[in-house]
Amino acid sequence: MAAVAALRLLRAQVPGWLRRGPCAPLPAGFCTRGSASAAGRQEPEPRPTVARQRDGIRNIILSNPKKRNALSLAMLTSLQNDILHEADSKDLRVIIISAEGPVFSSGHDLKELTEEQGRDHHAEIFQTCSEVMMLIRNHPVPVIAMVNGLATAAGCQLVASCDIAIASDKSSFATPGVNIGLFCSTPAVALGRAVPRKVALEMLFTGEPISAQEALLHGLLSKVVPEEQLEEETMRIARKIASLSRPVVSLGKATFYKQLPQDLRTAYYLASQTMVDNLGLQDGQEGIKAFIEKRKPVWSP
Amino acid sequence: MAAVAALRLLRAQVPGWLRRGPCAPLPAGFCTRGSASAAGRQEPEPRPTVARQRDGIRNIILSNPKKRNALSLAMLTSLQNDILHEADSKDLRVIIISAEGPVFSSGHDLKELTEEQGRDHHAEIFQTCSEVMMLIRNHPVPVIAMVNGLATAAGCQLVASCDIAIASDKSSFATPGVNIGLFCSTPAVALGRAVPRKVALEMLFTGEPISAQEALLHGLLSKVVPEEQLEEETMRIARKIASLSRPVVSLGKATFYKQLPQDLRTAYYLASQTMVDNLGLQDGQEGIKAFIEKRKPVWSP
Amino acid sequence: MAAVAALRLLRAQVPGWLRRGPCAPLPAGFCTRGSASAAGRQEPEPRPTVARQRDGIRNIILSNPKKRNALSLAMLTSLQNDILHEADSKDLRVIIISAEGPVFSSGHDLKELTEEQGRDHHAEIFQTCSEVMMLIRNHPVPVIAMVNGLATAAGCQLVASCDIAIASDKSSFATPGVNIGLFCSTPAVALGRAVPRKVALEMLFTGEPISAQEALLHGLLSKVVPEEQLEEETMRIARKIASLSRPVVSLGKATFYKQLPQDLRTAYYLASQTMVDNLGLQDGQEGIKAFIEKRKPVWSP
Repeated sequence: MAAVAALRLLRAQVPGWLRRGPCAPLPAGFCTRGSASAAGRQEPEPRPTVARQRDGIRNIILSNPKKRNALSLAMLTSLQNDILHEADSKDLRVIIISAEGPVFSSGHDLKELTEEQGRDHHAEIFQTCSEVMMLIRNHPVPVIAMVNGLATAAGCQLVASCDIAIASDKSSFATPGVNIGLFCSTPAVALGRAVPRKVALEMLFTGEPISAQEALLHGLLSKVVPEEQLEEETMRIARKIASLSRPVVSLGKATFYKQLPQDLRTAYYLASQTMVDNLGLQDGQEGIKAFIEKRKPVWSP
Repeated sequence: MAAVAALRLLRAQVPGWLRRGPCAPLPAGFCTRGSASAAGRQEPEPRPTVARQRDGIRNIILSNPKKRNALSLAMLTSLQNDILHEADSKDLRVIIISAEGPVFSSGHDLKELTEEQGRDHHAEIFQTCSEVMMLIRNHPVPVIAMVNGLATAAGCQLVASCDIAIASDKSSFATPGVNIGLFCSTPAVALGRAVPRKVALEMLFTGEPISAQEALLHGLLSKVVPEEQLEEETMRIARKIASLSRPVVSLGKATFYKQLPQDLRTAYYLASQTMVDNLGLQDGQEGIKAFIEKRKPVWSP
Repeated sequence: MAAVAALRLLRAQVPGWLRRGPCAPLPAGFCTRGSASAAGRQEPEPRPTVARQRDGIRNIILSNPKKRNALSLAMLTSLQNDILHEADSKDLRVIIISAEGPVFSSGHDLKELTEEQGRDHHAEIFQTCSEVMMLIRNHPVPVIAMVNGLATAAGCQLVASCDIAIASDKSSFATPGVNIGLFCSTPAVALGRAVPRKVALEMLFTGEPISAQEALLHGLLSKVVPEEQLEEETMRIARKIASLSRPVVSLGKATFYKQLPQDLRTAYYLASQTMVDNLGLQDGQEGIKAFIEKRKPVWSP
């Protein structure tokens, strides 16, 4: 969690970003729709994301459909804050990222990438975007992308960066930057680790979309369902995860990403240590005991 | 073969483990069903695996269906011995691992993972299990998993660790440890190298099974067939491999795993050297000659 | 482009290899069918590849169907030259590699791999072959394999090494070297990076072919179409790529392969720098401007 801690130090010194919105306050919930925290703005704008939390499930919704949920710097910062908010709280078990409107996200806001904005500004945008993507991986709870529509460029990167991705069958995915002279090189980092190389390169070189079924076939998604079942199925999975032991899930997620790039021997060494540590957790022994005693486990609060 | 040699030194000092069972003795075959070799046991128990060998094909069968073929320490040790037995013999060409009963394997025996057993015992179990998985990769002959039923946790890991995996269409695969508070971190080492990341994480975070068809789609299996064809198809592939040159297959297998994690240039350097070495083998030149002379090759005995 | 430059220094000192063939000379095109450049040959043989270029699209055709387009040393050298020819020219935007006859390529010419040819000659063949495969990856423009038939051994390797691979539904793919005692270890370098491990190993251990649909399912191909649509669909994709900015595509391709083997943080660092550099290109800013001004971009010539 060093990454989360460091990012929080850098970014989360914005205690005022969390404002109560129109939702009814819930015992273990929160709900936001306040002003953007981006520094230097004179007038507060509506935050481009909405976040709600209930029963351990945090829904973060990209909520700027008029701008096709472009990942502007304000959107990225807002998303980052919503992901980081009380990341270590025991009340948070799983995060779902979804979007309002027919476009999940169209990627970077091109108006922020003009010559006038300058090289340093461009660099800041890509760095912030990369931080958000890595934050998802380094976060202590699983992050699910729930996609219902088109996800392109950095929007496709966001889907590829989540731990789990569920989409409606009408969704599609593309990295069309090459069409406007900006090759999707950062989206390709996530895409190239999710789908076979040839699929990634055909998408990157032609900018053409693939369907949800193709995305499932090639590993970009873990599940495709009819549109009317998307929320139900995603919530079913989220509720399942929320019902499990948070320390066990966190330890498992962290070890998964840690061992994956290692050679097999190192990977098994790391994972075996984690298994022993997992058994040493209160919830680890409770789970085994409950199984042997044929009863439901009672996880630590 | 350093790994095999080292493991053999450590483990295979159990010359008595090979007992003649109910099978008829075969000229080039062996068949076991004896007592377990686990140290410290007072009374001999039936060995939890059965091994038979004929015409170069060794069948190792997990044979404790009452306990859902749990990979207890005794089962792991027995499996390891059956895999290691005369690994360097020219009479061995291919290994098939299958199971008795409707469950291929349910993974670790949870009774061996209670608090009472203690941290050191837990560590030994995971280390032994990891050794068996790496042994399959380091073994000189191809190892095929033939799955007809449910493979979960370390049972799923065993399937993922074999070189080839063929399953009946009624089979399914899961890593459900998270349900009992023990995240499948060691199974995830093998699973995460076999299927796309999102598929692995959805399985690990939810504990839910995937079907044989999904496992094929995502790369966990190389083939799915109707149940009634499973043995026939697996034996067809095993006989094909057994009909080929053992030194050629061994060299190819070792190089495959050696080059795979390398950068492209190093990989081609290693593989090119192997091609030249392969041509220098007696069977390498015999094969080329036979092809040019339009006759069947005669491999070295 | 260091690799291309170095290879060019080594290899392309063969200015005479480009001869005008039977095609009509085209303004921005070239067409070859001359004598082989292999040193030491007394009589000139027809070059085993044909190359034509028009509108930025270079078609390289393996043209020795009588010998099943075997990748003899002469074929490899000819292919290498056709790929390297004016690689840095702005007139070249994309390369298509296809083949004449029902066999795309049957792999190495076994007559060059006999004992009489000797170890050094064998080593030269595999080194040249590896160089051609790496050249495709290091080349500044996308390379598409267009496959209509059987691709085996190093022929399958060639398909696996291209950036994009499109095949007719009657095509099939195999690594059958093990049948003649020569395990496909160098093809396995490319195959093992294109398809799941179990699929690769079943192909390598049994020598049996997979269909185009299976190849698509497992990531060896990016697209499968009916035979009668193969050329049309491939040309459609090639024309699309040829219509884009060459410097943008080149930068994107180079970065894709550079970041792919890195850890996530390094990969994002490299790719973010590329994004900033891409925006600094003339075509980068032109593309963004055109998008904002809602007009078609005009790429640098």
